[in-house]
Amino acid sequence: MVRTMSNRTCTIALPYYSGAGHTAQIATAIADGATAQGATSHIIDIEKISASDWASLDRADAILFGTPTYMGSVAAAYAAFLEEAGGRWMDQIWADKVAGGFTVATFGSGDKLGALQRLSIFAAQMGMIWTGPNDIGAPVFPAEPGINADGGWLGLMGSSVSTPRGAVRPGDLETGRRFGARVAKLCMRMSD
Amino acid sequence: MVRTMSNRTCTIALPYYSGAGHTAQIATAIADGATAQGATSHIIDIEKISASDWASLDRADAILFGTPTYMGSVAAAYAAFLEEAGGRWMDQIWADKVAGGFTVATFGSGDKLGALQRLSIFAAQMGMIWTGPNDIGAPVFPAEPGINADGGWLGLMGSSVSTPRGAVRPGDLETGRRFGARVAKLCMRMSD
Amino acid sequence: MVRTMSNRTCTIALPYYSGAGHTAQIATAIADGATAQGATSHIIDIEKISASDWASLDRADAILFGTPTYMGSVAAAYAAFLEEAGGRWMDQIWADKVAGGFTVATFGSGDKLGALQRLSIFAAQMGMIWTGPNDIGAPVFPAEPGINADGGWLGLMGSSVSTPRGAVRPGDLETGRRFGARVAKLCMRMSD
Amino acid sequence: MVRTMSNRTCTIALPYYSGAGHTAQIATAIADGATAQGATSHIIDIEKISASDWASLDRADAILFGTPTYMGSVAAAYAAFLEEAGGRWMDQIWADKVAGGFTVATFGSGDKLGALQRLSIFAAQMGMIWTGPNDIGAPVFPAEPGINADGGWLGLMGSSVSTPRGAVRPGDLETGRRFGARVAKLCMRMSD
Repeated sequence: MVRTMSNRTCTIALPYYSGAGHTAQIATAIADGATAQGATSHIIDIEKISASDWASLDRADAILFGTPTYMGSVAAAYAAFLEEAGGRWMDQIWADKVAGGFTVATFGSGDKLGALQRLSIFAAQMGMIWTGPNDIGAPVFPAEPGINADGGWLGLMGSSVSTPRGAVRPGDLETGRRFGARVAKLCMRMSD
Repeated sequence: MVRTMSNRTCTIALPYYSGAGHTAQIATAIADGATAQGATSHIIDIEKISASDWASLDRADAILFGTPTYMGSVAAAYAAFLEEAGGRWMDQIWADKVAGGFTVATFGSGDKLGALQRLSIFAAQMGMIWTGPNDIGAPVFPAEPGINADGGWLGLMGSSVSTPRGAVRPGDLETGRRFGARVAKLCMRMSD
Repeated sequence: MVRTMSNRTCTIALPYYSGAGHTAQIATAIADGATAQGATSHIIDIEKISASDWASLDRADAILFGTPTYMGSVAAAYAAFLEEAGGRWMDQIWADKVAGGFTVATFGSGDKLGALQRLSIFAAQMGMIWTGPNDIGAPVFPAEPGINADGGWLGLMGSSVSTPRGAVRPGDLETGRRFGARVAKLCMRMSD
Repeated sequence: MVRTMSNRTCTIALPYYSGAGHTAQIATAIADGATAQGATSHIIDIEKISASDWASLDRADAILFGTPTYMGSVAAAYAAFLEEAGGRWMDQIWADKVAGGFTVATFGSGDKLGALQRLSIFAAQMGMIWTGPNDIGAPVFPAEPGINADGGWLGLMGSSVSTPRGAVRPGDLETGRRFGARVAKLCMRMSD
């Protein structure tokens, strides 16, 4: 078997909604982490989504879904985006793509798991392959300050409680970059 | 303190969204069951919700949330309704009201539990007291044909797979009437 | 019908499992809060559960379920307790009792919502009425330091990350006392 | 790039618990489907799990978790298995393996989604990559009778309500064979 890594590519789409700006910053951090591994990233603000963005989503190797957690689930604007994307269900256009999720709330729990569960069930209906960020977390490994500080594994969780208005914790951004790198590597591993 | 049972009243609001008409029919069945117990029911189509409807919701002793399950959770239109209702969170206007949910999908499972979990977490954030329909179900008790046919307990589940277009299974409607009666009794038990 | 408030009583059972002692301390705090409202509390360590404890559970007006969150759900020992309790399902012996849950993990999220969802679905199958602690939380209301610090509403969440070995945050204990008081009041409101 | 498919291998472990025999039959069907694609399958009854079985789990490329749904989640015996497996969490021995789940209950819903969510969160904590069976389902595509009859996508769902004692619906077995084939193909796609 002869093969070089350069044959392997990955395009990651990151459709996100951001109310106060936190989720947008984490989307950028994830994209940075993916790009550093050689992937191509398309960040898509679902409030301004265009036909070209939908085409990017359909072509992507991986889609990472990002939304604040509002009242225990995804933002309503994001629910509308998911429902529109659900129009691709019957033809399974997104099947076999890699999927993952990221979400932000004020609190450490903030019922963010509810939003991530909702995203993972949606992804399963679409036939996608789900991956979390896979960092055990700083409370267990203090040598990694701020990494996965809230303790979430189904997807990336960020919190705004201890930050100045609109700011994201540095550890959440670093967790995002690692998540992007992980998805890029998984995606390349699958791209043959 | 002197009190007779006749002092006890209960007002139940049923804000629902219905895509194909199934959820609307179940809302009516639940309201019928509640009314038969002496409760007052307000069925509210959230696509036409008015300021007066919001006032009814704020005054109600119980709120039963109804929506189809689309792509593993509540319909996007319903998510928008919940998010608007979430504006009452900080003042806990709905706290201590009785809450419950009903949902319809094509399939027996159809990930309907995902929609009901989303509703129950929302209700908990609002400080509400959650009750399911509490029918063990026809597959366990064949003498009760059609009752809780899908086997759901967190809320009422209906299926459209075996019915003519737009029709609801008779057992789902009867399960709805029983759910309405249960909520009315619980609500009256709490109304002092 | 003549009734005075003094006729109203409430017995609360708190079956818990505790690995490192945190959950046991929160059980005690909840019981203290309930007792202060005039309720009777029975704390039950499910590792030592006796026939008399099962009788207490069957007689109780409210049952609050407590367990650490291990690997995203209740502890295995607690799952065994729930499965044994499930033997009461067919006869619905626990139907119409008030129910609630409390859980502890290292992290703020720690997927504790997964454990609480599991408990709330179990309670719904048993025909129970579910209530959360209903404190909005300190990150929103800084005047209430430590109250609902993790931001959980489906049930009480505690974290051990920032405490000395085996200790529980004072705010988690106070959140527990408030939860006990809330359940006692709800339970009395329903006891006629 | 020169490469032949014959370089690609996949070993799938299927640790299952079965109360009445349904889950065991589905485990066999999944293994059959995987073997037909060239994968190696190890079916493991967790009631008789040995040190050699644990070694098989640690070496496997994919692990598919199977359990009945009891009271809204995995069987207690299975919860104990998962907790023991959780001892591998700190060292992330199962990280990057493919994961999936299958479950059986009496009813179409039967809160089986609760068991699958529990498994998918566990898998995410272990760093695994989750895949569902990805069959849209017979109620939508009547030309595929019995395939995904309950409408579950996060994992495979089987029902026993309409079958003779101990029997599994033929469609559930065929859905299982397809799931095994899907996992084998995904696993080989990742095996470089």
